[in-house]
Amino acid sequence: MPTPIDPSSRRDFVTRLSTGLGALSFTPFLPRALAQSSAKKQGKLGIALVGLGNYAGKQLAPALEQASDCYLAGIVTGTKEKEGVWAEKYGIKKANIYNYRNFDRISENDDIDIVYVVLPNSMHAEYTIRAAKAGKHVICEKPMAMNAAEARTMIDACERNGVMLSIGYRLHFDPNTRELMKLAEEKPYGAIKYVQSEASFIMGNNLKAWRLNRALAGGGAMMDMGVYSIQAARYCVGEEPIAVTAQEYKTDLRKFKEVDETITWQMEFPSGAYSNSTTSYNMRTNRIYVSYERGAASLEPATKYTGIKGFVFKGQNVERTLEVQPINQQQRQMDGFARSVKAGTPSIVSGEEGLADMKVIDAIYRSIANGGRRELI
Amino acid sequence: MPTPIDPSSRRDFVTRLSTGLGALSFTPFLPRALAQSSAKKQGKLGIALVGLGNYAGKQLAPALEQASDCYLAGIVTGTKEKEGVWAEKYGIKKANIYNYRNFDRISENDDIDIVYVVLPNSMHAEYTIRAAKAGKHVICEKPMAMNAAEARTMIDACERNGVMLSIGYRLHFDPNTRELMKLAEEKPYGAIKYVQSEASFIMGNNLKAWRLNRALAGGGAMMDMGVYSIQAARYCVGEEPIAVTAQEYKTDLRKFKEVDETITWQMEFPSGAYSNSTTSYNMRTNRIYVSYERGAASLEPATKYTGIKGFVFKGQNVERTLEVQPINQQQRQMDGFARSVKAGTPSIVSGEEGLADMKVIDAIYRSIANGGRRELI
Repeated sequence: MPTPIDPSSRRDFVTRLSTGLGALSFTPFLPRALAQSSAKKQGKLGIALVGLGNYAGKQLAPALEQASDCYLAGIVTGTKEKEGVWAEKYGIKKANIYNYRNFDRISENDDIDIVYVVLPNSMHAEYTIRAAKAGKHVICEKPMAMNAAEARTMIDACERNGVMLSIGYRLHFDPNTRELMKLAEEKPYGAIKYVQSEASFIMGNNLKAWRLNRALAGGGAMMDMGVYSIQAARYCVGEEPIAVTAQEYKTDLRKFKEVDETITWQMEFPSGAYSNSTTSYNMRTNRIYVSYERGAASLEPATKYTGIKGFVFKGQNVERTLEVQPINQQQRQMDGFARSVKAGTPSIVSGEEGLADMKVIDAIYRSIANGGRRELI
Repeated sequence: MPTPIDPSSRRDFVTRLSTGLGALSFTPFLPRALAQSSAKKQGKLGIALVGLGNYAGKQLAPALEQASDCYLAGIVTGTKEKEGVWAEKYGIKKANIYNYRNFDRISENDDIDIVYVVLPNSMHAEYTIRAAKAGKHVICEKPMAMNAAEARTMIDACERNGVMLSIGYRLHFDPNTRELMKLAEEKPYGAIKYVQSEASFIMGNNLKAWRLNRALAGGGAMMDMGVYSIQAARYCVGEEPIAVTAQEYKTDLRKFKEVDETITWQMEFPSGAYSNSTTSYNMRTNRIYVSYERGAASLEPATKYTGIKGFVFKGQNVERTLEVQPINQQQRQMDGFARSVKAGTPSIVSGEEGLADMKVIDAIYRSIANGGRRELI
């Protein structure tokens, strides 16, 4: 879940790779290559990262070094310079390095059990489907696809090819987030009345950032940060929304020429629970608040990689604090899926979980385009 | 600002007055009556409370006992039993006790400088105008009126009669709330990007409560709690909104047959700042969050009578906490107005402040009725 990406820092990262470090020749560090074989023997599943941007480099690869049930076995990149850098840094075998032309040959590679798609949104469907056809299990980053129809084809492709599909919803593996899910399930404070969720950051000024490009991103803040707030409302209520009303607001017509800057939306749930959310590329918010019949719960920050913390209220008084947990979300997420694969049990963040969010996003964009309340299809 | 009123507790309060305590005969407690004369001599202004419900009895009257620049000089009530109880409890002279028929004779009473209208919303305009015609300065509870047109007539009546008008916005006298106003004015963390404000409680099941009666209340949660969140957005941005979009949601068609249960709304401000708010009679929320360019601020609880506290964030880190202040909001509010009257300077929560909120409320109800974005008139 590559968020928040500061496009300028991503550019710095790429620049650094293609200059200083990129000058290194491809000399796999032998002990690490051996460590890979050893990992395989230990029963760890091999993961290949597709797309070596900021999130893959700064979050997923380091997390895989801490993983117990999977390891970084391969990479897929269109940038030649990254091959050597990653190979050396993570001891990746030359045979496990692919580009976007020869990617489909990954089907012949027994080292690779899982393909993790970390590409811009417009490529999620294509690479998920190609990975499925190659017989590989798939983790696809959020948002799962450009829309619900695409998400459905991805689920179908994985089913048809007998592989498992998981979406990069790391927060389902965060203990404090799971506390909120548990409160929705067990209802110790009565019915869930309301969820207020917000996820926003101030987007940098690189107008060439793929997240500002409709063809690549499919939308703006909603496709990036909004997904978190949809997720939050869904797991804090523990139900699927039946209708959505959405509003768009824009102040910078140049930066946000193609994609949404700020969207607010409300969701109606079958039990009568309601949510109100804001997502934006032009403010700083990262919060969840749940109102129960006889209490409340909150997380702030709610969706960051680290530091998630909050409170549970009985009535108006803090009953307990949800302290920061010293975990690595991405490591837990990938290990969790690796264990699902080994056990043959579906991912707790399956393709259907991603599809549910895409249905909401479709309804949000329909509401913005046509106005008013839109039922989910 | 009678909030949250639990209609059942209000009924209990009324029942208690009209049974046990109400049986006491009218015997003003002499030393207290003398204290009143003494107050007048000390230059304190005499306040008459119009409407002796929960808020007048539990908040305003006790607050007046702590006041330095005003005192409880008179009462106006339609309930005979309350006269004796209040007269004894607060040492009110018989001559300073009015009912709704003889109210206008208050013009002849030099003990009364200020009339504080604490009646159901539908009566705010009438009693404010009658008080103005009687030559008395007025404090009117929020919401100021049933709509902006009524609010305007109230302002006009006060101007025409040369009296000052103040609205019961006690939070403008709360130090932590003032901190947020100061941040909006001084902008130490850059531009104000966003305000999220929420004020809600779960309404009791007394279907005869005046707050559920459209003719008396003019609306539901919006007219009661929503005003706080409009206020919050306005003072946290420090600008007047230019447009509003609103959505209504209802789950209990019996309890909320006549008035709104839950309303969400978004406001656009001239600088580009945006707000998203929720008010409801069917959830528990009481919060303000402000996102600045380089920081944030929050209050929770944000609008309760006591316990208001929060944080100021520089970037993502808490820079300072806004600790609970040991003050009485209502005492500060009434003393503040009394000093304004003495000095001849307008109230910091003048009729125009109330009118600004009524304009927003009008636009919210227009948006709900007709859909979409509505500019303020």
